[in-house]
Amino acid sequence: MASPPIISLTTDFCVGSPYVAEMKGVILGIAPTAVIVDVTHGIEPQNVREGALVLRQVIPAFPLGSIHVAVIDPGVGTNRAILIAEIAGKFVIAPDNGLLWPLIQCQQSNVHVFRANQPQFWRDDVSATFHGRDVMAPLAAHLAKGVVMNELGESISEVVRLELPLPSRETLSGPRGDDYCDASAHVAEQLAGEVIYVDTFGNLVTNIHVSDLRKQQIVAAEMGGPPVKRIEQLVRTYGDAKAGTTVALFGSSGYLEVAVVNGHAGQRLGLAAGAPIRIRLA
Amino acid sequence: MASPPIISLTTDFCVGSPYVAEMKGVILGIAPTAVIVDVTHGIEPQNVREGALVLRQVIPAFPLGSIHVAVIDPGVGTNRAILIAEIAGKFVIAPDNGLLWPLIQCQQSNVHVFRANQPQFWRDDVSATFHGRDVMAPLAAHLAKGVVMNELGESISEVVRLELPLPSRETLSGPRGDDYCDASAHVAEQLAGEVIYVDTFGNLVTNIHVSDLRKQQIVAAEMGGPPVKRIEQLVRTYGDAKAGTTVALFGSSGYLEVAVVNGHAGQRLGLAAGAPIRIRLA
Amino acid sequence: MASPPIISLTTDFCVGSPYVAEMKGVILGIAPTAVIVDVTHGIEPQNVREGALVLRQVIPAFPLGSIHVAVIDPGVGTNRAILIAEIAGKFVIAPDNGLLWPLIQCQQSNVHVFRANQPQFWRDDVSATFHGRDVMAPLAAHLAKGVVMNELGESISEVVRLELPLPSRETLSGPRGDDYCDASAHVAEQLAGEVIYVDTFGNLVTNIHVSDLRKQQIVAAEMGGPPVKRIEQLVRTYGDAKAGTTVALFGSSGYLEVAVVNGHAGQRLGLAAGAPIRIRLA
Repeated sequence: MASPPIISLTTDFCVGSPYVAEMKGVILGIAPTAVIVDVTHGIEPQNVREGALVLRQVIPAFPLGSIHVAVIDPGVGTNRAILIAEIAGKFVIAPDNGLLWPLIQCQQSNVHVFRANQPQFWRDDVSATFHGRDVMAPLAAHLAKGVVMNELGESISEVVRLELPLPSRETLSGPRGDDYCDASAHVAEQLAGEVIYVDTFGNLVTNIHVSDLRKQQIVAAEMGGPPVKRIEQLVRTYGDAKAGTTVALFGSSGYLEVAVVNGHAGQRLGLAAGAPIRIRLA
Repeated sequence: MASPPIISLTTDFCVGSPYVAEMKGVILGIAPTAVIVDVTHGIEPQNVREGALVLRQVIPAFPLGSIHVAVIDPGVGTNRAILIAEIAGKFVIAPDNGLLWPLIQCQQSNVHVFRANQPQFWRDDVSATFHGRDVMAPLAAHLAKGVVMNELGESISEVVRLELPLPSRETLSGPRGDDYCDASAHVAEQLAGEVIYVDTFGNLVTNIHVSDLRKQQIVAAEMGGPPVKRIEQLVRTYGDAKAGTTVALFGSSGYLEVAVVNGHAGQRLGLAAGAPIRIRLA
Repeated sequence: MASPPIISLTTDFCVGSPYVAEMKGVILGIAPTAVIVDVTHGIEPQNVREGALVLRQVIPAFPLGSIHVAVIDPGVGTNRAILIAEIAGKFVIAPDNGLLWPLIQCQQSNVHVFRANQPQFWRDDVSATFHGRDVMAPLAAHLAKGVVMNELGESISEVVRLELPLPSRETLSGPRGDDYCDASAHVAEQLAGEVIYVDTFGNLVTNIHVSDLRKQQIVAAEMGGPPVKRIEQLVRTYGDAKAGTTVALFGSSGYLEVAVVNGHAGQRLGLAAGAPIRIRLA
């Protein structure tokens, strides 16, 4: 027996919003065996960047063929397109406002994008304010029932991009700070990144991916400033340092994050998205 | 293959309440193939009116045959009845305290209501404080398995009603305000309504339905007061005006709502449920 | 047809956390027909005791064979074990930190516990910080698909215990307070307990179970202090007293709770978890 289709929902409607339930009712009316998964409805209203980062984090954990609907849609009802994309074997339906860009960037190839233009697959009455319910939910349900993408829309080659800050690599020279006695430090390298979001534990998740280290080791790290906050310890996991310590570690998606063990790093350090982080490499 | 039965849950238990999970455990123990959908658990505790409005908004989006359980139940354990209703082809189980009234009012005919009186379809031990788990969840699960309503209860013809404020239509005469040069405004009509709830985006949703306009046009709108807040623009969708504009539009359920584009209208205008709105028609 | 397997999730990730969605994606990739139920993701971060009490409350409502994953895991990535337990016909997967102890205590016999030690049933890359996704979710999914516990781990006989405060029974003598004219009160008995948690309605749920009364009657109850707060009425259900009354009743799990009718007892009485309660028996 074929596996039941999976449809995930990511919105900025707020937890417990009846609007989410309306989308689910529409989906189940078309695709009754769909398994609906709430990713989150707690995206900050109209924060496309937060939504895009959540999709990039979450979709890799889902199986091939899963369908993901993202409704962070400040342009609802205007002429922005609604996209149906296949990205590395998974399907994503979202307005064309940058939500898909980080996912597409991770793949480069293996991406097919269509622009929804077949209203016979939408609800009969499309409101001007709720395309999540009236267009995107039905599209996801029809995909789940086996309708192929090119019946739902027309192929397109360009989508709206979302500029995410990338860490920069800098070469330092001359003695500085705590490692001035280390000869190798006289020509050191540094990665300068920033906090991308604060997760629900208060951990500061940065844009520095483990692959950005190019197998070098971290010898020091600091954030924010002035005055800067020193990262006390680089650890493998939260339990490796004692409560209250400010640590850095690579999180479960491969991005460097700064945590206060058993505490809320964002509040303790007074830092939020956008705060700079600098790590010294050797 | 028959579609799996759908059971939705609407409660005031609070998001993440373990009480909700107990209800789900009971349902799945009786009807293992039921698809359970959380509508919301964020109804203000014991706010029957809010629950009733959410049911009226959400149930139309669900397919025929779907089952909806609503537990906003300040009278739990007293002799208030538990109702099992079929309303326009969908089933609703709720205490008899007004929760069903707006749904029933929309239908007039096509409504059958039963009062639960067959304890063999309830849990063996019915607590005095949690009929959601002990009576309503099992009733929903038995309905989902195909037990018919008249096995679960006795037919009744009256339910508790819930008075919702209705907009009133008034005739105005004489010149006033910004449209005093418009001849037609000398005998104008006005709809006076009020804010019914503030949604999760901060939009002020009123009790004025698009059908209340009787195809007339809105020429001006104002809220609250004194001093009154002027609605700057009537739009079709949020994206039609620039950020910060106070707009009015008909939302996805057909009710007039007032929004601040990219902002929280409730906070910006300092208005909440109950605030008056007046719209001038021509 | 066999019932679809049920997998419940209880975490401290916060409502709407994308980490929860990652766990669901992993589960559905292995066990596509699993029915996933969110118990709660609102456990206070790292509060093992709260998680343990929720599991004890919720799991009895689920059918035999259901699988329950609990990720309140301050020791993630350290050498704490991950347990797979069968407790009275239901399965629980959790770190070995006390989460299972109240459930096991309720059963005494009928408990089998295994320590996960077969990485071929985990994700290929196990992160140091997210064993919920990388170990516990796959274990649950494999159990759901029919893998037996002793293929997933090795049997163990001891788990980490969690000390929960138990109520104590005291004998009082001599006249006191409001019942000094009652002859039987000259040798009275008292149960001294405490508030274990405040539920989402603000009710103060204590550690005094109905069975602790040994069929005696409650003649008086007081909390906190000094000054003590008198419980005004012992009721069967909230609707039995008028709004604003401070009442005590046995809740839906059999534990004594103190409520303010139509109000938030925690806020009204200024009491929280740990507050003492004393009930006089006759």
